[in-house]
Amino acid sequence: MSKVATPYAEKMAQSQKEISISDFFAKNRQILGFDNPSKAMLVSVKEGVDNSLDACEEAHILPSIQVKIVRCPQKDRFIIKVRDNGPGIVKKQIPHVFGRLLYGSRFYAIRQSRGQQGIGISAVVLYGQLTTGKPATVISKIGDDHPCYRMEIMIDTKRNRPQVLSEQVVLWDPPHGTEIEVEIEGRYSREKKQSVLEYLKATAIVNPHVEITFEDPDGEMRRFERVVQKVPDQAKEIKPHPHGIELGVLKSMLHNTEARKMSSFLITEYSRISPRGAKEILERSGIGENKKPHLLSPDEVQMLYDAFQATNFMSPPTDCLSPIGDNLIRKGLRKEIDSKFAYTVTREPGVFRGTPFQVEAGIVYGGELEAGGPVKILRFANRVPLLYQQGGCAMTHAIENINWRPYGLEQKGGRGIPYGPAMILVHVASTNVPFTSESKEAVADVDEIIDEITRALQALGRRVKAHINKRQKLKKVSEKYSIVREILPEIAKKSSSIMGKPIPPLDPVITKIMNIVVIDSGIHYTEGNSKDGSDSVTEVTIKAQNYTAKPRKFRVMVKVPQALIQGIYPESYRMKGDAIEWDVGPIHPAKFEHLGFSILGLAKDDYDEVEVFYGNLPGEVIGADPL
Amino acid sequence: MSKVATPYAEKMAQSQKEISISDFFAKNRQILGFDNPSKAMLVSVKEGVDNSLDACEEAHILPSIQVKIVRCPQKDRFIIKVRDNGPGIVKKQIPHVFGRLLYGSRFYAIRQSRGQQGIGISAVVLYGQLTTGKPATVISKIGDDHPCYRMEIMIDTKRNRPQVLSEQVVLWDPPHGTEIEVEIEGRYSREKKQSVLEYLKATAIVNPHVEITFEDPDGEMRRFERVVQKVPDQAKEIKPHPHGIELGVLKSMLHNTEARKMSSFLITEYSRISPRGAKEILERSGIGENKKPHLLSPDEVQMLYDAFQATNFMSPPTDCLSPIGDNLIRKGLRKEIDSKFAYTVTREPGVFRGTPFQVEAGIVYGGELEAGGPVKILRFANRVPLLYQQGGCAMTHAIENINWRPYGLEQKGGRGIPYGPAMILVHVASTNVPFTSESKEAVADVDEIIDEITRALQALGRRVKAHINKRQKLKKVSEKYSIVREILPEIAKKSSSIMGKPIPPLDPVITKIMNIVVIDSGIHYTEGNSKDGSDSVTEVTIKAQNYTAKPRKFRVMVKVPQALIQGIYPESYRMKGDAIEWDVGPIHPAKFEHLGFSILGLAKDDYDEVEVFYGNLPGEVIGADPL
Repeated sequence: MSKVATPYAEKMAQSQKEISISDFFAKNRQILGFDNPSKAMLVSVKEGVDNSLDACEEAHILPSIQVKIVRCPQKDRFIIKVRDNGPGIVKKQIPHVFGRLLYGSRFYAIRQSRGQQGIGISAVVLYGQLTTGKPATVISKIGDDHPCYRMEIMIDTKRNRPQVLSEQVVLWDPPHGTEIEVEIEGRYSREKKQSVLEYLKATAIVNPHVEITFEDPDGEMRRFERVVQKVPDQAKEIKPHPHGIELGVLKSMLHNTEARKMSSFLITEYSRISPRGAKEILERSGIGENKKPHLLSPDEVQMLYDAFQATNFMSPPTDCLSPIGDNLIRKGLRKEIDSKFAYTVTREPGVFRGTPFQVEAGIVYGGELEAGGPVKILRFANRVPLLYQQGGCAMTHAIENINWRPYGLEQKGGRGIPYGPAMILVHVASTNVPFTSESKEAVADVDEIIDEITRALQALGRRVKAHINKRQKLKKVSEKYSIVREILPEIAKKSSSIMGKPIPPLDPVITKIMNIVVIDSGIHYTEGNSKDGSDSVTEVTIKAQNYTAKPRKFRVMVKVPQALIQGIYPESYRMKGDAIEWDVGPIHPAKFEHLGFSILGLAKDDYDEVEVFYGNLPGEVIGADPL
Repeated sequence: MSKVATPYAEKMAQSQKEISISDFFAKNRQILGFDNPSKAMLVSVKEGVDNSLDACEEAHILPSIQVKIVRCPQKDRFIIKVRDNGPGIVKKQIPHVFGRLLYGSRFYAIRQSRGQQGIGISAVVLYGQLTTGKPATVISKIGDDHPCYRMEIMIDTKRNRPQVLSEQVVLWDPPHGTEIEVEIEGRYSREKKQSVLEYLKATAIVNPHVEITFEDPDGEMRRFERVVQKVPDQAKEIKPHPHGIELGVLKSMLHNTEARKMSSFLITEYSRISPRGAKEILERSGIGENKKPHLLSPDEVQMLYDAFQATNFMSPPTDCLSPIGDNLIRKGLRKEIDSKFAYTVTREPGVFRGTPFQVEAGIVYGGELEAGGPVKILRFANRVPLLYQQGGCAMTHAIENINWRPYGLEQKGGRGIPYGPAMILVHVASTNVPFTSESKEAVADVDEIIDEITRALQALGRRVKAHINKRQKLKKVSEKYSIVREILPEIAKKSSSIMGKPIPPLDPVITKIMNIVVIDSGIHYTEGNSKDGSDSVTEVTIKAQNYTAKPRKFRVMVKVPQALIQGIYPESYRMKGDAIEWDVGPIHPAKFEHLGFSILGLAKDDYDEVEVFYGNLPGEVIGADPL
C-alpha cells in the first residue's frame, strides 16, 4: 500500500466552527457604529433614546426622556443614562432585552418603528462591557402596583446570553418607565455636526410630541419642550404585499403558514388580497382553492408566483407609515437656516420587495446660507436623524446623480453634491428601512427608493429654478423700470428744451418700453397674545402693476390654507374651494391696484409663500403663474 | 379591591423573542451587499472567488479558478458557478460551510485573509434560495483517494442550519477542489465600473499567482494568466498585541485562558510579551507571577491594564500581513492608465485596538487621464478590490479631508475629492479589516487607519507637487532657453551692425541669463526574445547641461534596482550600495556631458523613474535633488 498524505481539508476541518453572534459583533463593533470614541458616544445615546421613543409610542404614552452624560475620572470614560416614562419591561424580559443580541419585539412586525433589529441597545451594553469591563444597570417598573427592579447585566459573548450580576427591588417614584446606565469609552464633542446635542435637537423637531432634557458632561442643562400634546397615530402593523414577494420567500411562506387551504392562505397572509382576488389568482395559476399550501409542487409555486405578478392589487396600505409631514420638514430646515424660500414634497408611498416606503423631501434656498459651499444635506429615516455615513447613503447618491445645473445650482461636471445657498432634507419612512449596516447610519441603494428620492428632488429642483427665475426676472424688471423712470424724463427734458416744446406725457412711453404686468406679493406676520395663538395674524398683500400701454382687466386667484380668513379686499371677490378669486381692473397704464387678506391663528411659518395665479391676461406677466 | 389595568409591558412581552440570524439577514439582505440585482451578481461571484483564493493559499496551492455565469430563460435569472483547485472540504463540513451563517474557520484566527466572518458564501446560498427558491449545489473532493461528493443544500432560516436535499458520490477528474453552483436573481452588466469582469481583472492584478478563466452569459471567454509561479508566503497567525487590548477584553481573556499562572498567561496569550516583559508588567501592577488569572480582583485587572499602557512593547509582528507591494500597485494603476509618473508609498504597519494593519497607496498622474474630472479612486482591502460604497469608505474620507491644492490638484473649498488628471490607489491590509458592514464594501472610520492613509496620501501629494514643479520648471527653463537662443543672436547682430563691431561670443551672456544646471534623464526599454525576459534591456540616459557662466565639477548619483547593471559610462564611476556615483565635469559653460547605463532582465515597468541626485553644486539645479 502506498502512503496517503492526510488531505489539507482535514486539517482545515478542525478549525471550522460556529461563530457566536456576540463574538462577531465584539470583533466587528464598527458595524454597529462604534468605529471611534466620538461616534460610540453618539450611538450609545441614540440607541437608548430611539428605544425609549418606540416603547412610549407603542404604549400610547407621551414620551418624556432624560439623558445625562457624566464624565468619569479616567480619560475618555463616560457614564450615559437614559430614562423614560415608557411602559417598562417585565422582569423576565429585562435581561434578554439588554443582554442578548438579536432579541426584540419589533423584528417580525411589519410596521414603521425606529428599532427593528433587536441589536441596538444590547450592542451598547456589549460595547460598554468591552471597553470598561463594567456591567450595564437597568431599572424598570411596569406599573404602580408592581415592584421596580434594578439589575446589573453583562453579556456572555460566547453564548450570546445575558448574565445578571445583581438583582434587587428598589423604590422608584414614577408609575412606570425604564432607565439604562452604561459606562463606556467615548469622547464628548460640542462640535455642531454629529454631536449628541445635534441628534437630540433634530429628534425633537421631527418628533414634536416628545419632551427631552439633556445634561451634558459639564452639567449644562438643555430642555426640548413638547410642542404637540398628542402621541402620533400608531403606525399600523400590516401583512406583506403580494407584489415584490420573491419566489423563495413565497415558498417558505407556503411551508410555514397555519392556513389549511390556499384561499385562506392568500387572504390571511397578505395585504390587499380580497376573497375575490384570491379566487382570481388561484384560477389564473390553476390551483384548487382547497389545496393545502404546503403540498404545492415546485411548478405550482412558480405558477402562483407568476399569477401574483400578473394580477393588479391596490397599493399597500399606508397607515403603516408615519411621515414627518410638510410642516415639520419646513421647521427642521428653518431651524438650520432662516430663508423665505422653503419647499417640500411628499411622494405617494411605494413598494420594494413587498415593503411599503414613503419619501419626503424639502429644500431651503437663499437666506444666510453660504453661496460658495456645497449644499447641506439633512437625512432622516423613520423620524430618526442620520448623522454619519452621508457619503454611503442612497439619499446622498440620489442627490449626486441629479444634474442640478438646469435647476440653477452649480455642479462640477453635472454630478456630485451641488454647490449653492441651499439645504436639502430627505426622509425615508418604511416598515423596514434597508440600512447598509446594523449601525443604521445610511440607506442602501435600493433602486425603487433611489427612484422615489430622485423624483422628489427633481420636483424640488423645478421649484428652486422657478424661484430663481422669478427673482431674477423681478430684479431685471425693477432695474429696467428704475432706469427708464430716471433717464426718460432727463432725455425728455433736454430734447424739449432744445426743440422749444413742452415735455410730453411720459407714461405711455414708459409702459411701451416695459410692456409687462407685475404681480408682487408679501406676507407680514404678527404674533398674538393668546396662549393658543388663535389671535396671531398673517397679513397677505398683493400689488398688481400695469406697465403696458393699455388698460388691463384680468383675474387673480390665490390659494389659502384651511383657516379663518378675514378682511379680504377689494370686496369684489369670490371664494372657490380653497382659493380667493378677484376680478381686477381695469388698471390703467402705469397704475396699480392692491389686493389682500388676513389669516387668523396660524403659527409663524405655516403660510410662508403666496401662490398667485392670473387669468385672461395676454402678454408677459411676472410674479404669478397662469391659471 | 380596585381593578388594576394590565400593564402594557405585559402585552409587549409576548412579542419579545429571539431573532434568527438567517431571518435577520433574509430581511436585511442589503447589509450583505444584495441591495439590487446588479450588485447581487457581483457579490455572489466575489464571495465564491474570495473563498476559493483563501482556501488555496491556506493549503499552499497555486489557485486556478473557473467562473461561469449562465443566463436562465426567466427574466433577471442567472446560474453562477465557481470552481477551484483548492484543498476541498471534508464531507461533514460541506453543509455547514455553505448552509449556515456565522460558521467558518478564519474568524478566530488573527491572520490576514479575505473572508473572516463566516457569512459570505452562505449568504449567497441564502440569497439564491430567497429569490429563486432553488438550493445551491456543491461538489467537493479532498484528495485522489477520496470520494467526490455532490450535495444540494438549502438553509433552514428559522434555525440557521443546513438542509441537505440530496447527497451523492460523483466522478470528478481533478485531484481536489470545490465547485459551487447557485441560481440567483441578478443582472449582468458589461459596464466598465463595478462589473464582475472589473472585479476579476483587479483581483488578477494584485494576485499575480492566480489563474482565472471567466465565461460570461454570452459565452464569451476571458482568461487571466498566472504571472508568478509561487504562492505568496502564508500570512502567519499571531496573538493579540498588548497595546490596544481594552479593559473588558482583558477581563474576558483572563476569564477564558487555559494558562494557570499570570506569567504564562501574559507570555502565551499575547504577542511581543517576553518572559522579562511579563515580569516587568507584573511588578508594575503588583500582581504575583503565580496568581491564577481568573482570580484577579477588578482593581488588579485595572492595574494590569494600566501596566500594559505604561510598558513599551515591540510593534506587532508584521508577517501576519501580506501587502500588495510597490510593483503590483504600479501595475494596478497602469492597467487603468498609461502615465509616466507613478509613485507608491508603503507605510510601516500600525495597530488599532491590538490589531495590526498596514497601508499602501499609489498615484498615477498625467498620461491620458482627463484633467477636468474628479480624481479616480481604486480601493483594496486584503488584496480584494472594493467596487461599491466608495462614498462611505475611510479611504475616500481620508482623500476628501486632505487639502490637495498645495499639492497642485484642484479642489473646491479645499475639501472633497480633488479634480485633476490623477488616479489614487489605496490598500488596507489587516488581520481584521474593520468593514462598515458584512458586505465588506467599505472600511470604517477608525482613527488610526484614517491617520495612516492620510500620511501615505500626503507623501504621494508631495511627490505629485514635486513632479508638477519639476515639469513646470523644466518647461519654463526650456522656454527661456529657446527665447534667449533665438533673440539674443538677433539683438547681437543688429547692435553689432549698428555699432559697426563684430558679433561678440554669446555663450557667456546666455549662461549668465540662464544661470542653471539642468540634469535631464530618460528611460528606453527593449523587450528581449528569451521566454524568461532575461535579455530585456532597460537603457537609462542622463544629460547634464551647464547653463552657468563658470565651468562646473560635481557629483551625480543614481539609485538602481537589484538587477544586472552593465555598460556604465563614463567609466569613472563608483558603485555605492544600490547606487552609481560619478564625478562629472568640468563641464564648460553652455556644454553638456552624457552619463548612462543599462539594466538587464527587468519587466516593462519595473524601473520607470530615474531618481537622480547631485552633490557639490551651488546655485540652481533642476531635474535632480540634492544629495
